[in-house]
Amino acid sequence: MKIVIAPDSFKGSLSAVEAANAINKGIKNAFPDAETALIPVADGGEGTLETLIVATGGEKRNVVVTGPLGDKVEAGYGVLGDKKTCVIEMAAASGLTLLSDGELSPLEATTYGTGELIKQALDNGFTSFIVGLGGSATNDGGAGMLQALGLRILDADGNEIGYGGGSLDKIASIEADSFDSRLKDCHFLIASDVENPLVGPNGASHIFGPQKGATPEIVEQLDQNLAHWADHVAKITEIELHNMPGAGAAGGIGGAFQAFFPCEVERGIDVVLEYSNMNQYLTGTDLVITGEGRVDGQTASGKTPMGVAQTAKMKGVPTVILAGSVGEDAAVLHDFGIVSIHSIINKPMTLEAAVRNAAELLELSAEQVVRTYFHSVNHI
Amino acid sequence: MKIVIAPDSFKGSLSAVEAANAINKGIKNAFPDAETALIPVADGGEGTLETLIVATGGEKRNVVVTGPLGDKVEAGYGVLGDKKTCVIEMAAASGLTLLSDGELSPLEATTYGTGELIKQALDNGFTSFIVGLGGSATNDGGAGMLQALGLRILDADGNEIGYGGGSLDKIASIEADSFDSRLKDCHFLIASDVENPLVGPNGASHIFGPQKGATPEIVEQLDQNLAHWADHVAKITEIELHNMPGAGAAGGIGGAFQAFFPCEVERGIDVVLEYSNMNQYLTGTDLVITGEGRVDGQTASGKTPMGVAQTAKMKGVPTVILAGSVGEDAAVLHDFGIVSIHSIINKPMTLEAAVRNAAELLELSAEQVVRTYFHSVNHI
Repeated sequence: MKIVIAPDSFKGSLSAVEAANAINKGIKNAFPDAETALIPVADGGEGTLETLIVATGGEKRNVVVTGPLGDKVEAGYGVLGDKKTCVIEMAAASGLTLLSDGELSPLEATTYGTGELIKQALDNGFTSFIVGLGGSATNDGGAGMLQALGLRILDADGNEIGYGGGSLDKIASIEADSFDSRLKDCHFLIASDVENPLVGPNGASHIFGPQKGATPEIVEQLDQNLAHWADHVAKITEIELHNMPGAGAAGGIGGAFQAFFPCEVERGIDVVLEYSNMNQYLTGTDLVITGEGRVDGQTASGKTPMGVAQTAKMKGVPTVILAGSVGEDAAVLHDFGIVSIHSIINKPMTLEAAVRNAAELLELSAEQVVRTYFHSVNHI
Repeated sequence: MKIVIAPDSFKGSLSAVEAANAINKGIKNAFPDAETALIPVADGGEGTLETLIVATGGEKRNVVVTGPLGDKVEAGYGVLGDKKTCVIEMAAASGLTLLSDGELSPLEATTYGTGELIKQALDNGFTSFIVGLGGSATNDGGAGMLQALGLRILDADGNEIGYGGGSLDKIASIEADSFDSRLKDCHFLIASDVENPLVGPNGASHIFGPQKGATPEIVEQLDQNLAHWADHVAKITEIELHNMPGAGAAGGIGGAFQAFFPCEVERGIDVVLEYSNMNQYLTGTDLVITGEGRVDGQTASGKTPMGVAQTAKMKGVPTVILAGSVGEDAAVLHDFGIVSIHSIINKPMTLEAAVRNAAELLELSAEQVVRTYFHSVNHI
C-alpha cells in the first residue's frame, strides 16, 4: 500500500507541511506498514519554500536582510534536495505577514530584502532559482530588489532614490553598469499565477494596492509612479512592462524579473508539482490524499487540490480530498476525477474549536478514510 | 454492489427509518445501480415497530385506545411482512412521549391501552406477538393491560381498582375467570433489555420511577404497591415476581407478561435483527452501513450498531458507522470489527444546525463514504 500525501495548507490553522504530517499520522495509525510520501503543496505563494524543501529533502538557510520597511528581518532561502536549486519566497523578505495592519505602507515598502536574498544565494554559488511571488507588502515594481543587486536608480541629482513605490517618481535615470553580472548566467523560474499588467485599471496598484494599505489617492499615485518606472525601464532594456501580462505580480516585481533576469514564468502549482517530483512519487501509488481548509464547487477552478488530482489522474491514481469545511456544491468535483471529499469535523463544533484542533481532526479523519478506502481491498 | 443499510435512530433528529432513507439516497447518488436493503434497527424501545414494518414490508394498523392518563389516543400495532406476526410497542399506547412534562403522573398512568392494542390484534386473529417494552409512562405492574384483557383486579368491596400504580394497594383479590382465553394459545416474544426486578432498591419504581415523574415519596409508595401487587399475583399464578429479573421492565409490565402470558424475553436488538431477516439480507452483501446520533467508546458495549456489526461480521460482511458525533475514543470500535467511523458533520456548525440538517448531512456523507469504499474495487 502506497499513499501520496499532498495537501495544501488549511488556512488559519495548519501549514501544508503540518497538514501532511497529521494525515501521515492518521494513515500510520490505521496501517503502520503503509508506504507514504509527504508532498505538501502550495500554489507559489506563502508556504512554497517550506513545501518544496520537505518534498525534496532539502534545507532552509536563514540570513538577515532588509525588511519591507527598512528594518532588519530574519528571512530564509531554501536549497532543494538536488543541492543545486535555490528557492526564494519573496514574502519571506518583503511580505505582508512581516507587518502588522497598522504598519502597512505601500508608498515606503521595498523589495530590497528580496534582492539581498538573491545576492546571498549568488554568493553561495547558486545559479538555478525558483522564486515564489505572492503575499508581498510592496508596490515598488521590484526596484528595491534590483538596487540590492547593483542597479543604480537615480534621481535628477544623481542620488539613489529612496525605498518604496512612493519614490519611483523621482527617477531621472537608471544605470546598469554595476548590476550583478552573475545574473545573466542564472536561470529564474518564477512561480506566479498573477496575469495582471504593471499599470492601468487592472495593474498592480489598482488590483492589489488596497490590500497593502493604499487609499484610492495612494493607488493613483502608485500607478503613475509605476508607469514612470516602466518608462525608464524601457529606455534601458527596450522592454515595455506597462501592459505586459504578469508584470503586475507582487507589486510589480514580476515585471522586474521579466525586464532584468533570464527567467520564465509558470503557474505556482505546476512549479511545485514539477520540483517536488510528484510524477515520480505517483508511480506505484494506490491513493493520493490532498486537502485544504475549505472545499466547494469553486475548488474545481482552483489550483492546489485540483492540480494534485489532475496530475494523479494522468498517472491513473485516484485522489481523495480532506477538508475542514465541505460546501454543499462540492459534489461537482466528482466530475473532475475526485473520488470523494470528506470533512475532518467529527461533531458539531465552532470554527474556533475546529481551527484549534485541526491537526488532531485531520489525523483522525485520515485514519478513517484510509480504513474505508483500503478495507475492501485488503480485508484488514 | 449490494449494501445493507441498518442505522439506529439519530436521537433528536432522525428516526431509524428516516436515517435509512437518507443513507439510501446518498448511496444512489453515488451508484444509481447499487442494490440496497433498508433495515432500520432499534433496540426494542421506541421505533421498533416502525423499523420491523419497514424491514419486512409489513403494515401499520391504527386504532384508538386508552392513553396513559385515561384519555383516548390513536395508537398503532404493526403486522410484519409475513402477515402473521403482530408487533406492539407499549410506548405507542402507554408511553412517555404521549405526555408533556407537566402531565407525568406515575401514580395514575395505566397500561390499559397496551392491553387494548393486544385485544384488537387478538380480535383480528393474530396469535404471534412481538412486544417492545421501553419508553413507558407507567408504573402499574401491567395491571391496566391485564384489566383490558379481562383480568379482574378487585378491591375489598369487590369493585375494579382504578388506573395506575397508585391504586395497586387497594387490591384485595384477583380473579382470572374472565381473562381472555385466547392468550394461552398465543406466543409473545418480549423485546427488552431491562433486567431489573419488580421491587426493591433496583426495582422498577426506584430505578425508572423518577424519570416518570415520581418524587422520592412517590417512589416509596409505588414500590410498596408493586410488592402488594406481586403478592396477589403470586397467590393466583404461583409466580413470585418480586425479585424476578426483567419483571421491572416498563413499570413492571415485564412481570405481567412473565406471570400471565406464554412468553419469552430476548434483547431488543436480537429480536429486531432476527425478525428483520438481517442474516438473509447479508448474503452476498458487500458492505453494511449502520449509524446513530453519537458514537464513542461506549458504543462498543452498546446494542444497536454493535449488534448490527456483530451479525454482519459472522457473515463476513464489513460494517462502516456514520454518526452525528464521533467521540475521540471511538477508535476502540475497530477492535470489534468496525471498518471505520465517519461523522456526518461537514463543516463547523452548531448542534442545532446539525440536528436541523441531519437528513441532508447523512445523505451527503453516505455518498462520500461509499464512493471511498467502493472506488478501490470498481475504479469508477
